[in-house]
Amino acid sequence: MTPAFEALQKELKRLPGVGFRSAERMAIFLLLERPEVAVELSQAISSARERVRRCELCGNVCEEKYCSICEDERRAETGSLCVVEHVSDLMALEKSGAFRGRYHVLHGKLSPINGVGPERLNLAGLKERIEKESITEIILALPNDVEGEATCHYIIDLIASDEVEVSRIGFGLPSGASVLYADSVTLKSALEARKRF
Amino acid sequence: MTPAFEALQKELKRLPGVGFRSAERMAIFLLLERPEVAVELSQAISSARERVRRCELCGNVCEEKYCSICEDERRAETGSLCVVEHVSDLMALEKSGAFRGRYHVLHGKLSPINGVGPERLNLAGLKERIEKESITEIILALPNDVEGEATCHYIIDLIASDEVEVSRIGFGLPSGASVLYADSVTLKSALEARKRF
Repeated sequence: MTPAFEALQKELKRLPGVGFRSAERMAIFLLLERPEVAVELSQAISSARERVRRCELCGNVCEEKYCSICEDERRAETGSLCVVEHVSDLMALEKSGAFRGRYHVLHGKLSPINGVGPERLNLAGLKERIEKESITEIILALPNDVEGEATCHYIIDLIASDEVEVSRIGFGLPSGASVLYADSVTLKSALEARKRF
Repeated sequence: MTPAFEALQKELKRLPGVGFRSAERMAIFLLLERPEVAVELSQAISSARERVRRCELCGNVCEEKYCSICEDERRAETGSLCVVEHVSDLMALEKSGAFRGRYHVLHGKLSPINGVGPERLNLAGLKERIEKESITEIILALPNDVEGEATCHYIIDLIASDEVEVSRIGFGLPSGASVLYADSVTLKSALEARKRF
């Protein structure tokens, strides 16, 4: 409605998952309804931009040289390294409490169609880490899609010479799901991943 | 994961329609993926906070004393005034192009349960506007719920003495909807709002 309002709406629309209407709603909220949130959000952005950076070892967010997971010696002792696409995947796995080793965040997956080659991913330090940190097991927790598959194969080739066990997380029906509502690709994965009793 | 990251996530979560996971995704996007968006978003917030304010006549967003709708003489000539709950409702009506008069934004609706009485709404100037601007028709475009209903009745009582035609927008099946999937309250409204051929 006004140039400054539209500029704010346009910026909010750039956030992931935010469309035109949500951005309008957020702009009204920030300008008319809760102006104090606008101030505090601006401050949080500045403060986080100054402090938050990538862990030099794994690529997770941190405020020092290394993140709290890499600093945790008990994590190192497991000899397990879980490779994920994004920091958000790492956070989801941490919330599940199902993995207690270290992580390696690629910040993407191979996608030749979108011009994402290996040089765009955080792969440079991976081979070195396996040796330096005496990694004995690598778990590839990458997406169940073509790019995820390609990235897995690239990593397997990359670390071929190392004495390390490599696995990929299981695919199939998610918790609580029924066969009836599962899509065909999931059902195909689930059949291929069947386990004998 | 880090204090500054969590503080940013918490602030983003305060935005309307943003949950814990979306806020996490946005924080990662702003800090790791597109840091330039963080800078530009901060600037847009500051700039909009400085420039955008409420129109002194109708409550819409503007950068001067009055908004572009109130400044438009052709709008005033219609003698029509549309009362809406929020600026976003005004924007939706403007996009539809179905109304060419002026607006009055309440910035809320009566809700005794939530402690919202008439004094919390932008009602003070309404009676005065009707006289000053020679309003002949008031259209109440308020929500189809109990609070919307109560707000309509309050406004009708408020302007009872004025020689002005008051109506409320129609309720019923939205465009493209079928009876099968409509909820009971909508069907009740639609039956009550039936029109003879």
